[in-house]
Amino acid sequence: MKQDLVIGVDLGGTNVNSAVVDDDGRISHRAWQSISGSRTAGEVIDRLVACVEMTMDSCGRDRVAGVGVGTPGLIIEDTGTVVYAPNVPEWVDLPLRSILHDRLGLPVTIENDANAAAIGEHWVGGAAGHANIVCITLGTGVGGAIIMNNEVWRGSNGAGGEIGHMTVVENGRMCGCGAPGCLEAYASATAIAGRARELLQGGRRSVLTEMAEGDLDRIDAAMIADAAHRGDETACEVMHRSATLLGTAVSSLTNLLNPELIVIGGGVIKAGDLIFDPIRAEVARRAYKWSASILRIVPAQLGDDAGIIGAARHFMLSRSSMP
Amino acid sequence: MKQDLVIGVDLGGTNVNSAVVDDDGRISHRAWQSISGSRTAGEVIDRLVACVEMTMDSCGRDRVAGVGVGTPGLIIEDTGTVVYAPNVPEWVDLPLRSILHDRLGLPVTIENDANAAAIGEHWVGGAAGHANIVCITLGTGVGGAIIMNNEVWRGSNGAGGEIGHMTVVENGRMCGCGAPGCLEAYASATAIAGRARELLQGGRRSVLTEMAEGDLDRIDAAMIADAAHRGDETACEVMHRSATLLGTAVSSLTNLLNPELIVIGGGVIKAGDLIFDPIRAEVARRAYKWSASILRIVPAQLGDDAGIIGAARHFMLSRSSMP
Repeated sequence: MKQDLVIGVDLGGTNVNSAVVDDDGRISHRAWQSISGSRTAGEVIDRLVACVEMTMDSCGRDRVAGVGVGTPGLIIEDTGTVVYAPNVPEWVDLPLRSILHDRLGLPVTIENDANAAAIGEHWVGGAAGHANIVCITLGTGVGGAIIMNNEVWRGSNGAGGEIGHMTVVENGRMCGCGAPGCLEAYASATAIAGRARELLQGGRRSVLTEMAEGDLDRIDAAMIADAAHRGDETACEVMHRSATLLGTAVSSLTNLLNPELIVIGGGVIKAGDLIFDPIRAEVARRAYKWSASILRIVPAQLGDDAGIIGAARHFMLSRSSMP
Repeated sequence: MKQDLVIGVDLGGTNVNSAVVDDDGRISHRAWQSISGSRTAGEVIDRLVACVEMTMDSCGRDRVAGVGVGTPGLIIEDTGTVVYAPNVPEWVDLPLRSILHDRLGLPVTIENDANAAAIGEHWVGGAAGHANIVCITLGTGVGGAIIMNNEVWRGSNGAGGEIGHMTVVENGRMCGCGAPGCLEAYASATAIAGRARELLQGGRRSVLTEMAEGDLDRIDAAMIADAAHRGDETACEVMHRSATLLGTAVSSLTNLLNPELIVIGGGVIKAGDLIFDPIRAEVARRAYKWSASILRIVPAQLGDDAGIIGAARHFMLSRSSMP
């Protein structure tokens, strides 16, 4: 039988999702597994394997050519090794590709999740047709990826593209990485929700209190986007501040890399112009006119599927570049 | 006769310098012309041509294969066009390559001066042997260049590498480019001297007043570096502040691009550890350990010759890549 299917896998903080991705980037045969509470390296791998097996069972195992995996953390792409992963502290220098290859009996590639999302958007999403792009995903953290001349820029030892850890406020909020003033400390979905909570705890009145039914822990970035659309002053202020600092980083990226396109993804982009207008205003204020003249700043198009699609595409590209 | 010589030209703010550069990056047959007061596009070109003619006269016109020119401004490298040049306001959409080709009767290439300096350092200077580098030159402005996989990154429309216009202080000093808080507004030689003057005018006592014989306009970055070496508190404070913000930008670059080497040039580097220690301290504080672990931050080695050598090398590389 023809092995014409590739499975893409997106390992997130709470779930692993997998699906078949066809040659046109279309998804089918979805499966998922919860990894909440899976703490050991082995448990997470077991869930990941189970998820892929579910997809294979439904699409037909014999038709699967291989598996592309996207995972948070620092990946050595050549060897498929996870140097470290923020979600799975035990994954240190883990030869994930060879482990999964042994478990699944199929060729496997491993890619960083932010790179996978960028590869997906570059293939069939918001960045299709553009050679030089920067992709920023606002989630638990701020994922970043740089594609130049249609290739992911990985850097000298695999750690390139950490846009979330550009400094945007010199002695600003402490970031999870240990440095002050990183973009991630202001513009991740987590940071946006955290800032709203701070303001409410400080006595601000806001429709968010009602939306969260009084439980501030229920406030997330999507809820803040909704509240901002309804004109809530606190929500608008929080969104505006995060978007402005995102715009500062985007301006620096524009002056540095002179990309054609900057793609911004994550649930927060539901806020629409409330996010994009302040970014564009900062670019107008800070970036070189010549660079800004060709730059487009656009929302990601693939949503939560970007990682699955990009991980599968990464596998396809790796296979086609094999000697 | 064998055409075995290439002439490199460095067009600066006040002078144009040219020299023969051999295949090993060695310089001979230097010439220079002042362009102070040369305001029109034509006058500057006349001086540039005169300078090259002087070098050709001394090395033997028949031996010259071609001329590589480095100039400030935005260059479209493919066509040898100067889109704009900060020093020569009349140079707008100027087809400099074809003008010089016609005047000199020789093949010519045009490169941005910061890129030329980086190409020189990458060829036979502080970055020799490294594929992924960032080059920062602290002069009148802050010149920046990015070399990845041994190629200058020019960006989508030729404006990449503007490291001097990364934002380092959110609502900071106004930069010459019109944006607030650019690195250039803090770390150029001009900015360093300007800050020292401000402090002295504000009543600070410093050995600088004596060194400048009371004429604050004579204070330049090299003098501040000297004063700092002598332990002058004001000079040390100014150097430390500029170097710290340079370190902030270097940290962001490290997280973004994960280079092997960052080369820092310009007269200011005479300050040695007074510049490099604060940069390294910021990198230790802000950059990802994995990226920082392979990064070296080194002084440029070619001094004022980097531009000439790099411009000549740019010509050599262009010629060798011709079909």
